[in-house]
Amino acid sequence: MPEPTGPRARPAADLPKTFGRARPVITGVRPTVDDGHYPAKGAVGERVAVEADIFADGHDELSAHVRFRHEAGVPWETAPLEPVGNDHWQGEFPVLRTGLHHFCIRATVDRFGTWLKDLQARAGAGQDLSVELVVGGALVGQAAARAKGVDRRRLAELADRLHRTAEVTGGAAGLDVASDPELRELMVRHPDFRPSARSKVYRVDVERARARFSSWYELFPRSASTDPSRPGTLDDVRARLPYVARLGFDVLYLPPVHPIGTTVRKGPNGAAEAGPGDPGSPWAVGAATGGHTDVHPDLGTVADFDRLVEAASAEGIDIALDLAFQCSPDHPWVTDHPDWFRKLPDGTIRTAENPPKRYEDIYPLDFETSDWRRLWDALRDVVEFWIGHGVRAFRVDNPHAKPLRFWEWLIANVRSEHPEVIMLAEAFTRPRIMEHLAKVGFTQSYTYFTWRTTARELEEYLTELTRSPTADYFRPNFWPNTPDILHASLQNGGRPAFIARFVLAATLAASYGIYGPAFELVEHEPRHPGSEEYLDSEKYQVRHWDLDRPDSLADLVARVNAIRREFPALQQNRTLRFHHVDNDQLLAYSKTSDAGTDGSGRTGPILMVVNLDPEVAQAGTVHLDLDALRLDPSEAFVVHDLLTDARHEWSGADNFVRLDPKILPAHVFHVEPLASRVP
Amino acid sequence: MPEPTGPRARPAADLPKTFGRARPVITGVRPTVDDGHYPAKGAVGERVAVEADIFADGHDELSAHVRFRHEAGVPWETAPLEPVGNDHWQGEFPVLRTGLHHFCIRATVDRFGTWLKDLQARAGAGQDLSVELVVGGALVGQAAARAKGVDRRRLAELADRLHRTAEVTGGAAGLDVASDPELRELMVRHPDFRPSARSKVYRVDVERARARFSSWYELFPRSASTDPSRPGTLDDVRARLPYVARLGFDVLYLPPVHPIGTTVRKGPNGAAEAGPGDPGSPWAVGAATGGHTDVHPDLGTVADFDRLVEAASAEGIDIALDLAFQCSPDHPWVTDHPDWFRKLPDGTIRTAENPPKRYEDIYPLDFETSDWRRLWDALRDVVEFWIGHGVRAFRVDNPHAKPLRFWEWLIANVRSEHPEVIMLAEAFTRPRIMEHLAKVGFTQSYTYFTWRTTARELEEYLTELTRSPTADYFRPNFWPNTPDILHASLQNGGRPAFIARFVLAATLAASYGIYGPAFELVEHEPRHPGSEEYLDSEKYQVRHWDLDRPDSLADLVARVNAIRREFPALQQNRTLRFHHVDNDQLLAYSKTSDAGTDGSGRTGPILMVVNLDPEVAQAGTVHLDLDALRLDPSEAFVVHDLLTDARHEWSGADNFVRLDPKILPAHVFHVEPLASRVP
Repeated sequence: MPEPTGPRARPAADLPKTFGRARPVITGVRPTVDDGHYPAKGAVGERVAVEADIFADGHDELSAHVRFRHEAGVPWETAPLEPVGNDHWQGEFPVLRTGLHHFCIRATVDRFGTWLKDLQARAGAGQDLSVELVVGGALVGQAAARAKGVDRRRLAELADRLHRTAEVTGGAAGLDVASDPELRELMVRHPDFRPSARSKVYRVDVERARARFSSWYELFPRSASTDPSRPGTLDDVRARLPYVARLGFDVLYLPPVHPIGTTVRKGPNGAAEAGPGDPGSPWAVGAATGGHTDVHPDLGTVADFDRLVEAASAEGIDIALDLAFQCSPDHPWVTDHPDWFRKLPDGTIRTAENPPKRYEDIYPLDFETSDWRRLWDALRDVVEFWIGHGVRAFRVDNPHAKPLRFWEWLIANVRSEHPEVIMLAEAFTRPRIMEHLAKVGFTQSYTYFTWRTTARELEEYLTELTRSPTADYFRPNFWPNTPDILHASLQNGGRPAFIARFVLAATLAASYGIYGPAFELVEHEPRHPGSEEYLDSEKYQVRHWDLDRPDSLADLVARVNAIRREFPALQQNRTLRFHHVDNDQLLAYSKTSDAGTDGSGRTGPILMVVNLDPEVAQAGTVHLDLDALRLDPSEAFVVHDLLTDARHEWSGADNFVRLDPKILPAHVFHVEPLASRVP
Repeated sequence: MPEPTGPRARPAADLPKTFGRARPVITGVRPTVDDGHYPAKGAVGERVAVEADIFADGHDELSAHVRFRHEAGVPWETAPLEPVGNDHWQGEFPVLRTGLHHFCIRATVDRFGTWLKDLQARAGAGQDLSVELVVGGALVGQAAARAKGVDRRRLAELADRLHRTAEVTGGAAGLDVASDPELRELMVRHPDFRPSARSKVYRVDVERARARFSSWYELFPRSASTDPSRPGTLDDVRARLPYVARLGFDVLYLPPVHPIGTTVRKGPNGAAEAGPGDPGSPWAVGAATGGHTDVHPDLGTVADFDRLVEAASAEGIDIALDLAFQCSPDHPWVTDHPDWFRKLPDGTIRTAENPPKRYEDIYPLDFETSDWRRLWDALRDVVEFWIGHGVRAFRVDNPHAKPLRFWEWLIANVRSEHPEVIMLAEAFTRPRIMEHLAKVGFTQSYTYFTWRTTARELEEYLTELTRSPTADYFRPNFWPNTPDILHASLQNGGRPAFIARFVLAATLAASYGIYGPAFELVEHEPRHPGSEEYLDSEKYQVRHWDLDRPDSLADLVARVNAIRREFPALQQNRTLRFHHVDNDQLLAYSKTSDAGTDGSGRTGPILMVVNLDPEVAQAGTVHLDLDALRLDPSEAFVVHDLLTDARHEWSGADNFVRLDPKILPAHVFHVEPLASRVP
């Protein structure tokens, strides 16, 4: 015989008093991550878009709202949700400061609304309304009893009028009284007690605005010298700040600034042995002069670093440090904490490898050590050290090579004390791992953008990144190049490819970055054919760059960053929509402005068209999704190219475009009303 | 200043000892419903297909398995999961008895597997293996220390061999020793202790096999008389059992058998007033002679009902009762429990309505009554009463008109004592509500099948129903007709339409039903043009049927039900696949057999082709998905029509079909190897 299944059964008498009367059901709440196991992401100034499926038995009208508050325990606030069809409801709430916010959804049966809807249906069918007007009059009378002052008197009057109309044959006059918006408003203000259904409480982790909208610039400090006879220093980086600011970047990311190991040091172009003057890779962290909390003596001192952070801050720029949690064989931890490394049978330390590949200048940390607690604390101390020196942004090297649980713990710890800290995950790995790093707390993530080059690939990938569920927790940061990745399209496509990929990165994603000056100086020679490594990569040698070269893309970069700052549409990803073009080499997409809570910036849609072919001029008809652009199909409008200041009059959905890569492979249009046309 | 976010931060020292070393992550576990808030559904004899995304940092190999057990607390059992690409893992476990089962997924880093994979990569690159063979020898030696007896000796030998091969230059010979499947098996049998990651514990509610695979027949007892001079009784239904059994049905569903109200009783064809001899609608439950736990005196007695249940049981048939939780104005509860009904201002009870529609012969129960606990108990007592009289299946009338929470409570209560009870939800309402009724526990659900008539509609709808997440909790039961729904396609399509819709229902869904004898006797006149109501509906009057009419579809019905019993492929929905046909009037689909745990039934794919046009013969080429049919593209095969016994030799993906609705509008093919062809 089957046996009883036990604890599920409960007599009705044991249920809470209003349990059986709370009829609505709330499911599918967004934004949520793994049903609330992780917080969704938000940024200061955003309005968090909330949605859910809400329904109940029968035909009754429902009302629903979202309750929200900062976790610090301020009072709950309330915002309404509205039905948008198929039992789906939407609303939003503003977030004005950093830190975890809590929200939940509540729904009740709307007795007055149900009565009114039914009354209207009865009236429409010509039924006698008398009895129902008495019913409604009673509802309004009860509301009057709950209200005070003016509202109470007004509700009592309206209740009385409903009762009086009920006495006139058929009660048809009552419909007008009942449908009066003033009555509706009063009834909403003085709701009857209804048992409500409530969702779980979910969390949104709100970071500062730069978590959502940021422009990163990466440079090697040792290549920042304007004097070809010596390598750069932190002071040279400080001197470079006005240039970075002029280009419009707000995060300046430096590869590791720590002492570099000498044992098995790599030479230029990754050579197995370094010559005596070779500086080594900055990612081989640690030497006799110190480890992760020290500055390489050739770059300067911690005091120099402090001055750099302060000067950057004055320019509105965050200095982002690289967290490369690995050691050179000369790192102090190798002797101080030998248990943090894996040993071979002969007692030597196992170097980094992904068999058959070996990285002999690196000792990986062994996160399976029984001393993992002390290791975790030490790594957190590294982060805290640099936060203590003013760092508010980190780019994390290879986070997918350290336990995911470690990052969850580290980020929670750091952000609980320093909610302003931004962490960018440099994980070029499998999709599930990249997603999970974002779930456990990384602010932003490197992506596959570099390898998505066709119109179809870009549209598919961006659609995934900018919609729920991914967009609820994963913030892409698009890089056309990095010191590790010089994509074939840049190697072969020349200046037009650099411009196209730059415009794509800076307008598809609210956050993006370039590795410079290699990028704006169109550096494009690979170490060897088929390689994605740069020839004479700065990873292994000092370079000197001529920023004043006439072919520099610096002005274009500055222009695009200025546009990004001026138009809030480009500061978020949610409203990205693609528009069909009858030419596969042309990609058209738009973003519309989600009004910020401060109302700053210029509104209106931004429409991009990019020629992906670096060789040949391409033309075609763009079939605009006019709804997405909030355009009226019957009215003409102006597309104003913000790169060239040209204006074109367009009308309707279908419009012709032609882009010659030799001139400029991209349009960045502001869509404006016809009146704005310059005559 | 931002304030600390509080409780998330925890020093590493406060974390459990192995916390930091459990590196795998497990997400996206299936089958689960709302992240485990509701159990997924299973049926005795099934193998529950389990899947999850499982990954860890770095390059290590993982191993994962599912742990499962019946909630009664028997020991946990284990079954392996295997990676299928993109960090997705799959496995399954058998369920052999009713009741809730628990399962969770565990994953560990596979140290030996990682070592072996790396060794093979090193060997492939021609690297020296000596050191790694010592490492592996140590791993095997540790396993030997954990093992006993024969295994211990064998592991020690193998460890020794690895060590010895390490001493030979380069260690190349060690690769063979390491790759020996025997060693792998021994290492799996004696795993080292690894901190493992574990998912939440999820639940699968396992019902009896008929929950998954059932064939329902509905009839009105009062129309079951073979004597045209008197209405039918429960004894007549008993006499009808051999017919129902011959047709191959295993659930016989009866509309309510209770006393019928006389106040405002409806007449034939729903007339507002009944004549003196009119029997009224069985759904107007309750009269002076009793309510939901009584039998209508004209049908017989509770003792007659007991005899019917017993006789049905002997034929392998469940009697399914109708749970219509509503009252006629004459129901005993109206006087005994006036608080269970809503009142109008004059103290009279509000009748059922969906304004402007009114149903004046029905008093709905007021689930918002403050006495809801007693009401809930009374309704549960009704179910328990009939279970006490042998009922094991219920068809629930309009469940979406009662609180969803009530059903969750009721079904949990009933199933905790009687896990064999099956509940079919008759909810023709909005998608989210239908889904939710299934989530809260209904075994099976009516569907939109009746209104899905084109090939595209059927393919879309069935694809949704037979895949995760819907298939994890929602079991469709397809009805071509019901006493309330005579679809236009049946009104106009005649016999070919009846056959096509019948074959679709019985082969697309593992559970289906017909309302007879109206169905097999091709009853197709609507009450008026444009209505889905039957003319002279049995809902309001007694009918007499001639089951021996030569145009009855009874033989076809019996044949299809026999095929369903013979072929397990038709007893489940998971393997349903559609095949493209270059003619929109032809629908082709197949099911393959998931082997049952008892191994009974005939295997091999079943392939259906149905002509949806009831008028004209349609021909076209079916482009078979050979993978879905487990067919080799290079070999010919036989399609054996189980309806006509015809056999055709086919080969490759593209094959011609032609179906004349005037002959037979459907093929039900068994796909057989060529050898089975009758010469």
